[in-house]
Amino acid sequence: MPPQPNPDFLRRAIALATQNVIDGLGGPFAALIVRDGQVIAEAANSVTATCDPTAHGEVNAIRAAARALGTFSLAGCELYTSCEPCPMCLAAAHWARLSAVWYGASAADAARAGFDDAFLYEEFRREPAARSLPARQLLGDEAWESFAAWLASPLKVDY
Amino acid sequence: MPPQPNPDFLRRAIALATQNVIDGLGGPFAALIVRDGQVIAEAANSVTATCDPTAHGEVNAIRAAARALGTFSLAGCELYTSCEPCPMCLAAAHWARLSAVWYGASAADAARAGFDDAFLYEEFRREPAARSLPARQLLGDEAWESFAAWLASPLKVDY
Repeated sequence: MPPQPNPDFLRRAIALATQNVIDGLGGPFAALIVRDGQVIAEAANSVTATCDPTAHGEVNAIRAAARALGTFSLAGCELYTSCEPCPMCLAAAHWARLSAVWYGASAADAARAGFDDAFLYEEFRREPAARSLPARQLLGDEAWESFAAWLASPLKVDY
Repeated sequence: MPPQPNPDFLRRAIALATQNVIDGLGGPFAALIVRDGQVIAEAANSVTATCDPTAHGEVNAIRAAARALGTFSLAGCELYTSCEPCPMCLAAAHWARLSAVWYGASAADAARAGFDDAFLYEEFRREPAARSLPARQLLGDEAWESFAAWLASPLKVDY
């Protein structure tokens, strides 16, 4: 059976997001990391308060959960987030090896509130050359040197 | 004229990425944030060393640059990164309002070295229901409450 959400955890994320706005601490977003019905970490958006453009609720919660568990893999954990994760946060959920994502508001809702989430999803569907942020490759051959070192390294910790 | 890269900054990122592997500190990735020809911050991947699945070189460099400048917007700054940014890092570059991205190795190179970057780009092209990480919306109406609070808030700092 696929995993099933517990709406109470999502209500908690929504309440934290609203409180974050009321307190003037950041954007209207918050998230929880849950494992086996237990909250491992919860966090709200703190982009403006901490001068960190990556400090979305989901990223903050993932960082806090990994710190709490002392591991870089959150396999077996689920993300409850007040809003559909932006591409940064969804990719972070992948890298953290989360097993499911439950969200409240949609990226379209976020767009109506003035956030770029829906725009970013469209950007990622475009070919790189058609995206709004210019990105270009150079020194491709020289850059392989770092991967060659990785493949040969006896010290590497896979992640 | 569109922005032009300085290969020396990319060579520095590649050297840092290789050194990170040699030192056994993390993955073969590193990045610089540059503004007006000056390095604002540089950082390597520290996922395993710091137990933070979001600690890619680019995210670490963006966070360090924002901290150094005391701002959540890095408008006018450019990212030099040893490898094509994964979707998390590319979205972080958008949120940081960077003006250009210059990269060395490609996502395909990263895949050949055992990293999921190319897989993740494919995931983002799929419809949500077809992605490997289950994600589902619930409580959409209740979740709008956080955005309503945001739109009404006299305290909000746009970002």
